[in-house]
Amino acid sequence: MTGTVYLVGAGPGDPGLMTLRGAEALRLADVVVYDRLVAPSLLDLAPVTAERLYAGKEPGRAAMPQEAISALLVERALAGSTVVRLKGGDPFVFGRGGEEAMALAEAGVPFEVIPGVTAAFAAPAAAGIPVTHRGLGASVAVLTATLTGGAAPDLERAAGAADTLVVLMAAGRLAAVCEAFVRGGRDPGEPAALVEWATTSRQRSVVGTVSDLPRRAADEGLGAPATLIVGRVVDVARAAGPGTAPASDWDPSEAPSPPLEWALPRHAGGGPWANRRSTSARTDR
Amino acid sequence: MTGTVYLVGAGPGDPGLMTLRGAEALRLADVVVYDRLVAPSLLDLAPVTAERLYAGKEPGRAAMPQEAISALLVERALAGSTVVRLKGGDPFVFGRGGEEAMALAEAGVPFEVIPGVTAAFAAPAAAGIPVTHRGLGASVAVLTATLTGGAAPDLERAAGAADTLVVLMAAGRLAAVCEAFVRGGRDPGEPAALVEWATTSRQRSVVGTVSDLPRRAADEGLGAPATLIVGRVVDVARAAGPGTAPASDWDPSEAPSPPLEWALPRHAGGGPWANRRSTSARTDR
Repeated sequence: MTGTVYLVGAGPGDPGLMTLRGAEALRLADVVVYDRLVAPSLLDLAPVTAERLYAGKEPGRAAMPQEAISALLVERALAGSTVVRLKGGDPFVFGRGGEEAMALAEAGVPFEVIPGVTAAFAAPAAAGIPVTHRGLGASVAVLTATLTGGAAPDLERAAGAADTLVVLMAAGRLAAVCEAFVRGGRDPGEPAALVEWATTSRQRSVVGTVSDLPRRAADEGLGAPATLIVGRVVDVARAAGPGTAPASDWDPSEAPSPPLEWALPRHAGGGPWANRRSTSARTDR
Repeated sequence: MTGTVYLVGAGPGDPGLMTLRGAEALRLADVVVYDRLVAPSLLDLAPVTAERLYAGKEPGRAAMPQEAISALLVERALAGSTVVRLKGGDPFVFGRGGEEAMALAEAGVPFEVIPGVTAAFAAPAAAGIPVTHRGLGASVAVLTATLTGGAAPDLERAAGAADTLVVLMAAGRLAAVCEAFVRGGRDPGEPAALVEWATTSRQRSVVGTVSDLPRRAADEGLGAPATLIVGRVVDVARAAGPGTAPASDWDPSEAPSPPLEWALPRHAGGGPWANRRSTSARTDR
């Protein structure tokens, strides 16, 4: 019998931001196909006998082509396996989950999308920034600094799009993105923030303006993965203070493979999250 | 000792889309302050002794003013209680969580934001629509049909903002929103979809174009709560088919109060989600 494929969003980094339903799908998995920025401890939720296949991109190495990933999902499902495709953030928000869904539908494989907490909103939140706020921002646009295939998105058009702008994968092109936003009409003095490794124990962030943020981020040595936020909502972090959001104990520099520290059964007993405030290093100013 | 306040996103409707960390916060709660569209079964995760306070807006009745909710959170925390403020979707995405965070910071109350799965992305996903998709949409803007206080947002400006447009709370002003998008430059023949009660057992959706969606939605009798999606990504649902996303067994017409059917301990044993496909009524075309 053909197995079901679950396209599961793993959330922005902190394994605690996985959904209950996603955790349940992992417990059912015969096969887990996972990406690079997925919290390694989440893989522990799958049975020890489950096959774990890494489909992420290593820096400087070619990733498994999208077509190959889709073919793998179809092949394992047709062989009768329950498959979890575990993707950072949300599978349908810059996650290419739509391509996998179409391949599965075409092959007649039953599948289910389990949304996740998107880094587009959780990364700002982890730095104390709501993407909307009464009087400061009533709309938000989300885009990436680079499109699949390497093309540049139309950042100038996007600049006028919404009160708040969120740019995923912004580290590599930060200066170019900020300059495009100013050309597109944003005030160079508008507040802006960059959040690196959001919701993990490595989280750091800097706050500045659209014009000086690239220099500030470079001074602090912030790099990928990083999320850029532009808009007056950044001022909420100044008012309410940073460190208001959870950060996991997961050190993402660890290899993304088991054995791992964090596991649901231990946590469910009421352990490490109890009344814990964030302890991550930050450089907000 | 002052208690901690957790600002928790309950997700878009399906209680299975609550995060692990949010569920843990509920288990610690002495007080839960919850909104109208929160899945009632989530309240069962709190201890039976926990105080449950409803802060939502009933149709035709005034909601508890935001200032009163913030004051309540501060008061209970200063009295030593662990407080969960449970909000539909994500507290920092049109959730007014920023206002509560600022009030808590001002009062010196420790708090933590636990992001949730936003309806802005989960409602499209539940109808089979990824908000981004290679070749069909590389940016997404999220807004509401009405601002706090009743003002109209600048929909014409937003129309040119991004490839995909998502409008929350769209049911009441659907025709006006679609007309504004066309005035703002969207093609009247562009695909559009409306999803009602997304991710719940009452979910229904209609697909059409920017020009005919209001009539189609009226013909089917779709109402609030509903999410509008405009953009070529809607075609993915046509290709991959609807019903690809989870829907809970929660009937939101039930009163938002315990006792309730769904509870994590029962589920964690591996129950109702196992290999279940969506069974909700849909009217996609």
